[in-house]
Amino acid sequence: MARLSPGDTIGILGGGQLGRMIAMAAARLGLKCHVYCPDAASPAFEVAAASTCAPYEDEAALAAFAEAVDVVTYEFENVPDTTAAVLAARVPVRPSPESLRVCQDRLTEKAFLSDAGIATAAFRKVDSLDELEKALGEIGTPAILKTRRFGYDGKGQTMIRTAGEAADAWEAIGKAPAILEAVVPFALECSAIVARGVDGETAVFDIADNRHENHILKFSRVPAPIAPETAAKAADIARRIAGALDHVGVLAVELFVVRDGDAETLFVNELAPRVHNSGHWTEDACAVSQFEQHVRAIAGWPLAIPRLVSEVEMENLIGADAERWADILAEPGARLHLYGKGETRPGRKMGHVNRLASPNGRFGTSPKRPL
Amino acid sequence: MARLSPGDTIGILGGGQLGRMIAMAAARLGLKCHVYCPDAASPAFEVAAASTCAPYEDEAALAAFAEAVDVVTYEFENVPDTTAAVLAARVPVRPSPESLRVCQDRLTEKAFLSDAGIATAAFRKVDSLDELEKALGEIGTPAILKTRRFGYDGKGQTMIRTAGEAADAWEAIGKAPAILEAVVPFALECSAIVARGVDGETAVFDIADNRHENHILKFSRVPAPIAPETAAKAADIARRIAGALDHVGVLAVELFVVRDGDAETLFVNELAPRVHNSGHWTEDACAVSQFEQHVRAIAGWPLAIPRLVSEVEMENLIGADAERWADILAEPGARLHLYGKGETRPGRKMGHVNRLASPNGRFGTSPKRPL
Repeated sequence: MARLSPGDTIGILGGGQLGRMIAMAAARLGLKCHVYCPDAASPAFEVAAASTCAPYEDEAALAAFAEAVDVVTYEFENVPDTTAAVLAARVPVRPSPESLRVCQDRLTEKAFLSDAGIATAAFRKVDSLDELEKALGEIGTPAILKTRRFGYDGKGQTMIRTAGEAADAWEAIGKAPAILEAVVPFALECSAIVARGVDGETAVFDIADNRHENHILKFSRVPAPIAPETAAKAADIARRIAGALDHVGVLAVELFVVRDGDAETLFVNELAPRVHNSGHWTEDACAVSQFEQHVRAIAGWPLAIPRLVSEVEMENLIGADAERWADILAEPGARLHLYGKGETRPGRKMGHVNRLASPNGRFGTSPKRPL
Repeated sequence: MARLSPGDTIGILGGGQLGRMIAMAAARLGLKCHVYCPDAASPAFEVAAASTCAPYEDEAALAAFAEAVDVVTYEFENVPDTTAAVLAARVPVRPSPESLRVCQDRLTEKAFLSDAGIATAAFRKVDSLDELEKALGEIGTPAILKTRRFGYDGKGQTMIRTAGEAADAWEAIGKAPAILEAVVPFALECSAIVARGVDGETAVFDIADNRHENHILKFSRVPAPIAPETAAKAADIARRIAGALDHVGVLAVELFVVRDGDAETLFVNELAPRVHNSGHWTEDACAVSQFEQHVRAIAGWPLAIPRLVSEVEMENLIGADAERWADILAEPGARLHLYGKGETRPGRKMGHVNRLASPNGRFGTSPKRPL
């Protein structure tokens, strides 16, 4: 089915906050959602018309799910290959399993970018301590050793400051298939969120300036304090990547901005073939949210114009941060989003708040918050 | 319970589009919703964490529902008295059954407004043809005969142009307990949507200019083309009514604007003790939607500042109008909302579209649409 109609059903793999927000955007457009997730306490189940709670390896459950939906999408890139294959044999999977294959392995992803002529940090494949030592000789230190798969929020990676730390680092990541990457001396970390439609049409949101704490995204600010030409280049890179992947849906491109005097150079850090935490500001400060844009793309519908409506700062509410909900509700210009997760744990993303610039250009009004 | 916490559950009586949009606003704030509706095909069921499909008279189902939720609200004012009483004995009902009692009977409502010193059309109680003829003698023609209860979208009412039409009119409304109202020679029909918190705090949205077709709301335009003083008076009337009702939640006040030269005079037409179709523009053109504001109020949370973000025109998609969904999706500046109703019927509200003013002050870009 090339194009969905209102009343059709989107299948979503993964029941976390991203799936939840996709489901709500779809519901607003008259689409039904069916969420598939092995976790019975999935936040997305609460806003979906139907749900399947089963392992990703349960082929019978997957087949029934495929039968019940008109298109399948996902909220995370670590969808097992066989899961994607079982589904893709029965129903359109958007973005395609190829986007998954490229993006769920850091080495494949970097090689893809390199082949596409897009600048990244220098990198080497590492499958053994010998290879790691050889790679360190070529790339130098400091460098970062990362597992090829299943890393997120700083997990599965370790910094190597001197060649002598190689053995410890190899041990630290569990001797898993890995990639060694040069450290990029960036001034800023940014992201470009692009949507690409079934017909190849693309639309890029304004570039976000992302600040991390403890390897977890804490703030995104839009517009990013970069030159307009740099922003245009970032958007162009995102469009090229989406095109090279023949991607359908939203794709997040994380970039490093390196400064040398007034010159700004971009290096792609990593890709996420899905809606992304650094695009959460779009829900309140843009004419269309990344979630709606993703739904439009995978439904075969036209994309909306992602016009920035207000300067905005997104703050992730991580762990105990969410206990500030009552203060945030009372803060003028703040838009609170909570994910309905039952248990607060350190490092767990519980919600976020979008603070819109007031007419005088300040975000929110909390006197305590530094800008 | 005076104040809800994230994770608590709102019970919603009624599973139509209003309940659906309340549920989505609640979910965004980390609240769960439990929708109670006798209709198995209720659109709100699809976005709610829990649902009960049972008659409003089923006291056992109501008791179980009350047990499962932390507060009860409703999307329609015709909640049966006993339903409200059964629930209110077990759990806070917001707005209170008193708001229901006043607003579900046109005579009680007009008498309440009159007692509160708020101008309305002249009206008389009509329980017989004799009373109708007497009332026509006092009020004159043209006048409108309306059933006291269960009227909406022009149903249960008939225009009387000459005294000779009395008997036919009395027949036409089924000889039900009724009210005769003078016709107000209005220049505009407007509405003021007010939210009132548990602590008596109020916030009024910008006044909407409402245009009806076939007695059904078709367009709301904001800001309304009335004098700033008139808008302030309308807001003040809405606040006074909410206060006099000790209302908690959103309340819609429909008003007639009568013009005499430059002078504008307001008459209250009717009240709805709930979120209202003429407030749907708030979802895309205001810093807070009427649905979130209602959730905040009934949760015992602070109200948000209902700052208008853009001029806007809301168009109801009635019956076959919704078949234009693909054109609307392609229209810049248009925000489509579809309710997920399975069956299209003439006169049925299928969705709406909010068209935001572009920087040059025009709504949307469709060349065919008159402004």
